[in-house]
Amino acid sequence: MKSSFNKPFQYSPSRDEGLQTLYIIKIGGNIIDDEEKLLSFLQTFSAVKAKKILVHGGGKLATKLADDLGIPQKMVEGRRITDAETLKIVTMVYAGYINKNIVAQLQANNCNAIGLTGIDGNIITAHKRLSSNPPLWDGGYGFAGDIDSVNTDFLQLLLEQNMTIVLAPITHDKSGQLLNTNADTIARELAQTFCAIYDVQLIYTFEKAGVLRNIEDDASVIKLLTTKEYKELKEKQLIFAGMIPKLDNAFTALQMGVKKVIIGKAENLDDLINGSSGTTIVYE
Amino acid sequence: MKSSFNKPFQYSPSRDEGLQTLYIIKIGGNIIDDEEKLLSFLQTFSAVKAKKILVHGGGKLATKLADDLGIPQKMVEGRRITDAETLKIVTMVYAGYINKNIVAQLQANNCNAIGLTGIDGNIITAHKRLSSNPPLWDGGYGFAGDIDSVNTDFLQLLLEQNMTIVLAPITHDKSGQLLNTNADTIARELAQTFCAIYDVQLIYTFEKAGVLRNIEDDASVIKLLTTKEYKELKEKQLIFAGMIPKLDNAFTALQMGVKKVIIGKAENLDDLINGSSGTTIVYE
Repeated sequence: MKSSFNKPFQYSPSRDEGLQTLYIIKIGGNIIDDEEKLLSFLQTFSAVKAKKILVHGGGKLATKLADDLGIPQKMVEGRRITDAETLKIVTMVYAGYINKNIVAQLQANNCNAIGLTGIDGNIITAHKRLSSNPPLWDGGYGFAGDIDSVNTDFLQLLLEQNMTIVLAPITHDKSGQLLNTNADTIARELAQTFCAIYDVQLIYTFEKAGVLRNIEDDASVIKLLTTKEYKELKEKQLIFAGMIPKLDNAFTALQMGVKKVIIGKAENLDDLINGSSGTTIVYE
Repeated sequence: MKSSFNKPFQYSPSRDEGLQTLYIIKIGGNIIDDEEKLLSFLQTFSAVKAKKILVHGGGKLATKLADDLGIPQKMVEGRRITDAETLKIVTMVYAGYINKNIVAQLQANNCNAIGLTGIDGNIITAHKRLSSNPPLWDGGYGFAGDIDSVNTDFLQLLLEQNMTIVLAPITHDKSGQLLNTNADTIARELAQTFCAIYDVQLIYTFEKAGVLRNIEDDASVIKLLTTKEYKELKEKQLIFAGMIPKLDNAFTALQMGVKKVIIGKAENLDDLINGSSGTTIVYE
């Protein structure tokens, strides 16, 4: 990760005074697709007094739009391949519809938000993911983007203006090509980049109340998960497969200096923040 | 127009040193719909050394998407009515697809651009246009937004960072409702708001080389158009009807303090700036 900006704004937070808290919160389809839940979440989110960045993924709207337009969605090994038509759709839905509606709701709740993608202000540059060898299919990974750099200075300038940043997971390669980048990864990269400047709390929200001992039982949340325990649970195959990339992201973030990663339900945002809900992940 | 921002950044440009130039350039469908022309325009635009804001409208893509989705476009007296479904489409197309592709191309040309709507950073608040009495049709004007306020401070903060602002004509009412606002009007409001701070040059581009004496003859460009001459031409019905709202916007801007409004082809941007192409409109 390198940080770049033509004319950087210089801030020198005093370590002695302690770092300010920055919440980086990722929300996904389960909350985005439910208008009532989303509005309620955005209300709670608006009331969080600290600096904050909201990273959102897509949801069913992109799939629905592709269906309505008769554009077939290419899936390889459970992964959606972003071909040119799909990229156009996710750009419209993520950066257009979802991003702007979230920002309008935050403004309605007196939270001065700004909706951006990685393209704007050159926030996140990425490169088109290289095909595996042998390739999964003829088209490689399509327009999936792996992150090269984060423009911390510009994001910090906005945060220091007490603006809330709402980020759609579209990036670019600096040659005019838009790319679709995983929102969990964006949240992690931002957390890593900012942990030298702020006391970063990375919150991943999803449909479960936290990391569960028993996938069928929402009450079996593991309150505190250490590296060691995670390794054991993975070896015993006791971790729900869909959770593994999220947890790997969380542990990578901790290794890179992020103090705390919390996983849980977006509906419980206040409780995730005060520690009475979700799984707190620590590096040990 | 009132300017509002929670924590304003204070700049005090010295009048003695002269004001810096700010170009506010509006581009429309004729250039947005032609990929080759758009790329070439964006290259020229990137090379303009002064501070700049690009306001873009839509183009045929929104109409095509509505057609593909089988959403009928309501037209009343030649005006498209923005119903709820159309609002969703223009938000996706203008704020998503067009805005982000323009910004990615500018970044590729080393022009550090940021793509925004009126919702972001509360840049432009508006109210839903009231129905005429009697209403044009049952649905009034739909989700058309008339501007209430422009957040100059935040835009200025970005401009002072040498960022180029790319603005899609979607605004909001501060209660969570997105609105579709005329891009020509947005360009004019921005020009009026900024003329106290910058030496604003407002450039309206369209498919003709300027205001023509003879609509059939692209060589009949009126080089300099004064209020008086405009009034005469309007009375003699020698102004192409489609030009009138654009020219009315131009004269309103001049009345409000903007020094110069230029009308011409986006393809001739350099020549519009150096005065060798287009119509220059002056208040006399």
